[in-house]
Amino acid sequence: MTYVYNAWYVACWSHDLAIEKPFAMTILGQPIVLWRTASGAIHALEDRCVHRHAPLSLGRCEGDRLRCMYHGLLFGNDGTVVEIPGQDSVPRGAKTRPYAVIERHSWIWVWMGDADAADADLIPPAVGLDHPDFILGHGQLDYEAEARLINDNLLDFSHLTFVHAQSFGSGPQFAETQGKIETLDRGIRYSRWTENSTGSASRKSDEPMDSYMTYDFLLPGVLLMTGGVFPLGTAARLDYGVPDYDEAVSGVTFTSQAVTPMEKDTARYFFSWGPHKRHGDAATRDMHMEIAGRAFAEDKAMIEAQHRNIARAPDRPIMPTAHDRGITIFNRKVEKMAKDEQA
Amino acid sequence: MTYVYNAWYVACWSHDLAIEKPFAMTILGQPIVLWRTASGAIHALEDRCVHRHAPLSLGRCEGDRLRCMYHGLLFGNDGTVVEIPGQDSVPRGAKTRPYAVIERHSWIWVWMGDADAADADLIPPAVGLDHPDFILGHGQLDYEAEARLINDNLLDFSHLTFVHAQSFGSGPQFAETQGKIETLDRGIRYSRWTENSTGSASRKSDEPMDSYMTYDFLLPGVLLMTGGVFPLGTAARLDYGVPDYDEAVSGVTFTSQAVTPMEKDTARYFFSWGPHKRHGDAATRDMHMEIAGRAFAEDKAMIEAQHRNIARAPDRPIMPTAHDRGITIFNRKVEKMAKDEQA
Amino acid sequence: MTYVYNAWYVACWSHDLAIEKPFAMTILGQPIVLWRTASGAIHALEDRCVHRHAPLSLGRCEGDRLRCMYHGLLFGNDGTVVEIPGQDSVPRGAKTRPYAVIERHSWIWVWMGDADAADADLIPPAVGLDHPDFILGHGQLDYEAEARLINDNLLDFSHLTFVHAQSFGSGPQFAETQGKIETLDRGIRYSRWTENSTGSASRKSDEPMDSYMTYDFLLPGVLLMTGGVFPLGTAARLDYGVPDYDEAVSGVTFTSQAVTPMEKDTARYFFSWGPHKRHGDAATRDMHMEIAGRAFAEDKAMIEAQHRNIARAPDRPIMPTAHDRGITIFNRKVEKMAKDEQA
Repeated sequence: MTYVYNAWYVACWSHDLAIEKPFAMTILGQPIVLWRTASGAIHALEDRCVHRHAPLSLGRCEGDRLRCMYHGLLFGNDGTVVEIPGQDSVPRGAKTRPYAVIERHSWIWVWMGDADAADADLIPPAVGLDHPDFILGHGQLDYEAEARLINDNLLDFSHLTFVHAQSFGSGPQFAETQGKIETLDRGIRYSRWTENSTGSASRKSDEPMDSYMTYDFLLPGVLLMTGGVFPLGTAARLDYGVPDYDEAVSGVTFTSQAVTPMEKDTARYFFSWGPHKRHGDAATRDMHMEIAGRAFAEDKAMIEAQHRNIARAPDRPIMPTAHDRGITIFNRKVEKMAKDEQA
Repeated sequence: MTYVYNAWYVACWSHDLAIEKPFAMTILGQPIVLWRTASGAIHALEDRCVHRHAPLSLGRCEGDRLRCMYHGLLFGNDGTVVEIPGQDSVPRGAKTRPYAVIERHSWIWVWMGDADAADADLIPPAVGLDHPDFILGHGQLDYEAEARLINDNLLDFSHLTFVHAQSFGSGPQFAETQGKIETLDRGIRYSRWTENSTGSASRKSDEPMDSYMTYDFLLPGVLLMTGGVFPLGTAARLDYGVPDYDEAVSGVTFTSQAVTPMEKDTARYFFSWGPHKRHGDAATRDMHMEIAGRAFAEDKAMIEAQHRNIARAPDRPIMPTAHDRGITIFNRKVEKMAKDEQA
Repeated sequence: MTYVYNAWYVACWSHDLAIEKPFAMTILGQPIVLWRTASGAIHALEDRCVHRHAPLSLGRCEGDRLRCMYHGLLFGNDGTVVEIPGQDSVPRGAKTRPYAVIERHSWIWVWMGDADAADADLIPPAVGLDHPDFILGHGQLDYEAEARLINDNLLDFSHLTFVHAQSFGSGPQFAETQGKIETLDRGIRYSRWTENSTGSASRKSDEPMDSYMTYDFLLPGVLLMTGGVFPLGTAARLDYGVPDYDEAVSGVTFTSQAVTPMEKDTARYFFSWGPHKRHGDAATRDMHMEIAGRAFAEDKAMIEAQHRNIARAPDRPIMPTAHDRGITIFNRKVEKMAKDEQA
C-alpha cells in the first residue's frame, strides 16, 4: 500500500481534545498522542516512551509537558525528555518524535512526513462545524479495510447509482454518463450538472430543476463537496460551467470528509454535512445525517467485503473501466509523490 | 492440506437458495456466489467482480444475470461481463470464473475442478429431505478446524466408544473389534454386525437382537449410512453379509453427511438423519436430531481441540493404530488423486 | 523472547486440581495436562495424544492412568501408552512427554526443562494459603502480553509512584530514590526503609513511623514480598538493615506472586496477599485484595499497552534508566542461563 507522508492527515475532531486529556490515534501505523494544554496549544508526539515503550497517551499533562505514567519520564512538547525520576541527568538526545500539528476547520491535522516540509497552506479548505454559513452535523466510522479503498470509492461516483439507490435515491445518471474531471495540484475536481430533474433523497423538488454538484478530492484523502439546485435552463445558460451559489433556489449543502489510514488494514472516516443556512435548518441537517448514516453504512459493507476479497488474493489484477478515471489520476499522483518522497 | 478438486462439494441446502437471492459460500478458499433464477435454474460464479473485486453476492439478480452492486457491471450466468455502465463496449475476455453446479438430494453441489471434467454421475447418492421412504431432520455446524480432521473422525468409528458413550450410548464393541472395511472407487465402505445386543440410544430393544450398520465414505467427504435391527441369529445366518432391510424388525434409518472445506482452517458440516417410515415417525426423527445435536457437539469439541494442538506443532508425526485403516486408505486415495490432478 | 527452562513454573493453584479432573494449562507454548489421582498424587503430561494429537485434558482418569477420550489410548502417569483399543500390542516407545510436578505452597509447580535436572530445592519459598501465620486472599489475571514485561514491572518498583499513586497510595519516594538491590543465586533482593511516614493505602498510621519492605524476585518469575511498620527511629537504629518482624508495630503482610508465560504473547499472573495474623484479620485481607484488584488492573492496562507498542516495532531499542538495575541484573541472569541450557 502506497501513501504520501508529506501531507496533513486528520487525527480527530477539535472537540476530541479536552484540556490536558491525552488522546491516542494511529496514523499510517504510527501511534500518536495528541493533547491540548490549558492555554489551548496542541501538541503531538509519537505515543511511545523512549524508556520501555509505554504509551504516553496513558500519561499525565503537567503544564505544557507530558509525563509517562509508567516510570515517570517527563517529555517537553517537542518530544525531548526533560526529567527522569531517580536520575540527576538526562542522556543527550533522549527524545521521542514530535509531529507538526494544526487545528483548523474543526479537525486536528497531523503532518506525517518530514517536519521541515510541513506547510500549513497544504491543509485542504474544509468547512468547520462552526462555519457561519453552514449548519453541519458530523460523524465518523471505523473501517476494517485499507484507506485506499475508501478513497477509490469517493473518486468514482458511479457507485451512487448502485450502492446508494435507496439511501441517497441516486438515479442512473451517475453510472450512465461521466462527470467532468479536472486535475488539480494535489487531487482532482469532479463536477456534474443534472438537468431537468426533481432531485434525490436529500433535495426533492416539486418541479424539474437543474442541479449542480462538485467536489475536490485532495491529498491525502479529503473530499470537499458542494452544489445546489437552480432554475431549469441554468445549466445550458452557463454552458455547463460553475454556477453562482447565490443564485441557487435550494439545496446548497457542504460536506467535508476525510479518510485516515490507521493500521495497514484499518481506517477512520470523518464526515460532516449540512445545508447552507439559507437553504435549511437544524431539521434539514438532521435529515442529511440520517441519510448519510444509511449511505455510509452501505459503503462500509461493500468496501469491507471488497477488502476481504482482495486480501484473499492480493495479486489478482483489477479491470479498469471508464469511470475509473478519477481513481487512476489520483492514485498515479500518490504513487509519484510517494516515490519522490523516498528519493 | 491436500484436497481433491475434481469432485462435487456440498455448497448449501436446496432451501438456502431463495429465488433471486444471491448466496455466498467459500469452498477450498474460493469465494463463490450461488443463485437461483425465477425459472429455477441454479448458477455459481466466483464471488468476485473482475473490476475491483467487490463480492457479487452483494449484487442483484436481473433475469438469469447477476449485477455487481458496486459499480454496476452485469454478468451472464457463465461469468461473462455483458454490460459496463458508462461504457459502450466490454473488453474481450472480461469474465469471472463459472462453476459447474447441480441441485440433487436437497443439496447444491459445486464442482471445484476443471469444468470439462464435471461428471454428474460422481455425485454421491445421498438421501434428500424429500425422499419418500425416510423421515429426515437436518442441520449443520461450522468448524474451526480443517475439514480433513472431520473426515478422519468419520472414517474411524472406534471413537464412538469414547466420544459418544453418552450421546449415542455406543458400547465397547466399536473400539474392541474392527468393522469390515472395503475399498471403493472413490472411497471406502464400512460395515459391522453387532450380535445379541439390546441396542444403543437411538434404537433400544427389549430383547437381544442382531443389528447391522454400514456406511460409504466418498470423495470429497460424504458419509452415507444406513442399518437396521434384525432377529437374533440373522447375522450368523447371513454369514455376516449384507441384510435385506425389508426384513428388519426396527431401527432402519438413513443419515447423509457432508464435510466442506471452507478456508484452510474452517469447514462446514451438513447432516440429515431419520427413520425409515416403517420404523418411525416425526417424533423418532426429532429424537434422532436431539441425539445427533449432542453427539456432533462432542465431535466438534474434540476435533477443534485436536486442530489447535496440531496447529501448534504441525510437524509432529501421528502414530497410526489398527483402527486407522479406513483413514489411511481414504487419505492415500486423496493424495494420489490430488497428485494426478496437478500433473 | 528468552526464558529459562530448568525452573519450576506455577501451573495452577492446588485447589484447581479436583480429584480425577484433568486440567489444561499451557506453559512456554507447551500444552500440559495435570491431574490429581484419588490417592492425592499429581501427574503432568504433554497434553497431546501420540496417536492423532487430541488433547488428553479432554480425557478420563482411570486409577492413576489417563485415557484419551478420542480413540481410547490409555497412558500411564509417566506418559507411556499402556493400551490401544483394538490392538493386542503397543508399539515400543509409544509415549507422551511427562513433566516433573510438585505441589507446594498451594501452587502446582511444573519443571519445564530436563526432567533429570528437576530439583525440588529450587522451588521458591512462597507462602501457601494455609500458612499458619498469614491470612491470605488470592487471585489471578490473564495477560495479553509477554511474561517478561510483567517480570520487568515487578523488578522496578519506581512504577509504584506513577502507576499506583491512587490504588496503593504510593508516594514519590519509590521514584525519587533507589531501593537497595542485592544479587541472589536465582534472582535479586530488593529492600527499602521509608522513614517518618504515615504509610500508604494498605497500612495507614496516625503518627509517623518507619516502614520496611523487601522482596525477592526469583527464577522463573516469582515475587515474595514482606515488610512491616516499626517505631520511628528503627531504620536508623538498625543502620537500615533487616528488622525483626516480631518487633513490628503493625502492617506485616506477605504476598507471593508468580508470572507464568503461556503462549508467546500471553501470561498468567497468580497472586496472594494478606496480613500476619497479629496485624490483621479477614477484613484486613479483604481490604488488601480490594486494593490489589485495582492496582493489578492498573499494571495490566499499562503492560498490555506497552506490549502492543513493542509488538508494532519490535526492533526499537529501549533507553535504560537508573531504576532499571534490577531488571538488568535479572534479565542478564536469564539470558546467561538460557544460553547455558542450550549449550
